[in-house]
Amino acid sequence: MSETQKRTELYELGEFKLIDRLTEPFAPKQQETLKGVGDDAAVISCGKGECLVVTTDLLLEGIHFDLTYTPLKHLGYKAIVVNLSDVSAMNATPKQVTVSIGVSKRFCVEDLDELYSGIKLACDSYNVDLVGGDTSSSMTGMTISVTAIGSAKEDEIVYRSGAKVNDLICVTGNLGGAYMGLQLLEREKRIFLSNKAAKPKLEGYDYILERFLKPEVRRNVIENLRKAGVKPTSMIDVSDGLSSELLHICKNSNVGCRIYMDKIPIDEQTARMAEEFNIDMFTAALNGGEDYELLFTVPLSEYQVVDSMENVRVIGHIVEPHLGAYMIPPSGEDIRITAQGWNALQKE
Amino acid sequence: MSETQKRTELYELGEFKLIDRLTEPFAPKQQETLKGVGDDAAVISCGKGECLVVTTDLLLEGIHFDLTYTPLKHLGYKAIVVNLSDVSAMNATPKQVTVSIGVSKRFCVEDLDELYSGIKLACDSYNVDLVGGDTSSSMTGMTISVTAIGSAKEDEIVYRSGAKVNDLICVTGNLGGAYMGLQLLEREKRIFLSNKAAKPKLEGYDYILERFLKPEVRRNVIENLRKAGVKPTSMIDVSDGLSSELLHICKNSNVGCRIYMDKIPIDEQTARMAEEFNIDMFTAALNGGEDYELLFTVPLSEYQVVDSMENVRVIGHIVEPHLGAYMIPPSGEDIRITAQGWNALQKE
Repeated sequence: MSETQKRTELYELGEFKLIDRLTEPFAPKQQETLKGVGDDAAVISCGKGECLVVTTDLLLEGIHFDLTYTPLKHLGYKAIVVNLSDVSAMNATPKQVTVSIGVSKRFCVEDLDELYSGIKLACDSYNVDLVGGDTSSSMTGMTISVTAIGSAKEDEIVYRSGAKVNDLICVTGNLGGAYMGLQLLEREKRIFLSNKAAKPKLEGYDYILERFLKPEVRRNVIENLRKAGVKPTSMIDVSDGLSSELLHICKNSNVGCRIYMDKIPIDEQTARMAEEFNIDMFTAALNGGEDYELLFTVPLSEYQVVDSMENVRVIGHIVEPHLGAYMIPPSGEDIRITAQGWNALQKE
Repeated sequence: MSETQKRTELYELGEFKLIDRLTEPFAPKQQETLKGVGDDAAVISCGKGECLVVTTDLLLEGIHFDLTYTPLKHLGYKAIVVNLSDVSAMNATPKQVTVSIGVSKRFCVEDLDELYSGIKLACDSYNVDLVGGDTSSSMTGMTISVTAIGSAKEDEIVYRSGAKVNDLICVTGNLGGAYMGLQLLEREKRIFLSNKAAKPKLEGYDYILERFLKPEVRRNVIENLRKAGVKPTSMIDVSDGLSSELLHICKNSNVGCRIYMDKIPIDEQTARMAEEFNIDMFTAALNGGEDYELLFTVPLSEYQVVDSMENVRVIGHIVEPHLGAYMIPPSGEDIRITAQGWNALQKE
């Protein structure tokens, strides 16, 4: 490379700016493309008010998963679920997946049987079809690429961009558990690596381990909202952490937000593990990521419906854009929400 | 791993048997899934006779591409084209792609600009939209995963399974060029590695280099067939080599075939390079792969239409299944067609 050629490292831009830079020249040309880059999934019109949504995720060994503590069956299950989560965040119903894998000679046929048993379990559990893929050797490690397809009527689709001032901000389940499960697994891995005779101490933390290793999609909330006749004004899945997702909704909807610290749902195991690690549990909830809960907004008029709905918590409301995005603690100063979520393009 | 646990190496099964084993338990359950695993692309019904087709390809550095002699812009272009080729082989029109990339710290932002300039060129050239993807760091090398989506009416879709006895076998363009282009690049790489001052000798071989580095999809043949009112009875794209693709059609259609050696289209540069390498040019055409031509069958009654069509050559015909798959040389014994195409799960 000549000295005059500029070299900008990937971490200098970060994931979101890099995506913006790379995809900016690609304005959709096809009339069927209702939504391209920039939401949980792309939306493609099939005509007559019917749509398909399409989303894809690339999972790389050593970056997204560690096979030291991730059973292959769980990995297969999770690889499907994280994509169905994106489909669900568009308010669409997942229908099909494709799975491509690249595997080094370290892996044998029986390993792939394990991986695919998890993929099968997820497909059965969420009633989706495996319809294609690609299988290849790789130089090192394992690569998994999943694409998920869902269907919805065009007027059912929920984007990140529809939140309105005074809308209620809701989140499903609880947050921070997957992150604390990961911390626990990482600690036990370190102990094991320094003393191979050590047995991992995981008792009493089944829930947060499951949150990390075997996440689920809140399909029942999507269905309950539909039954109740409530269409969210905006929705996103919590893959990078609550902060990051809230800022996506604020940016795409051109609004601000207020969330209340004491409303953020945190499981007891998450809180206990956070204390053991001397991590603030709200930090885990806001920035941990991988919870695959749904974050959505509904009109204020739907308060009673969402407030009484199972696995849904109202955590705040949408405000005018100039008021910014803040978290309100029980006492003391408001805390500005900043995205410290998962950065897929780390320096180290 | 305990000694009782069986370990079967991936190369013992090979790609096709492995795919069969892994995907066998996944019978489609959704009524919208018209075709799952087992063709160039999956077919999803959108209702009212409209369909989408979906295909995906995983490209791994060191396995599918070598950046020593593949410019990033060409790689981006080719990554899109190989997927549009699969969409086209279903007789569908490509409309959208998603592109996921994993890149190590070896790559900088400007490298990705180059890669995406090739992706953009292919999207513009084939009038498709980039609608999504995923961007991540990787531990080593570059990973590219592309999913392509196309549209077609349900009755326009062409599967691998529709070839009938007496149908004509046709192929577009010419074969073996991409393989000989690759051999040339590999030779010059070896020379360069043993003497860094050596300049690559590529003059006079532009065509086969372009065949390898910048393949195209024969959209004009698809369009000419449509204009002529000819719907192929079966179709597949030539990615693994003519032999392998012929056997796919024979197996899926439950037929045999006869192709005539002297009808196989081979470019003059391919023939010249094959001679230089002491490789039989028919071996390159039959087993080389990566030509991305279309192989299809039409009823015998369409002979005049296809025989006079630009970039189409009739190379043989379909026979009863018990007659097997053979190539007929100008003289001597018939040669049984066996698949020696690209094996993505090599032992070495």
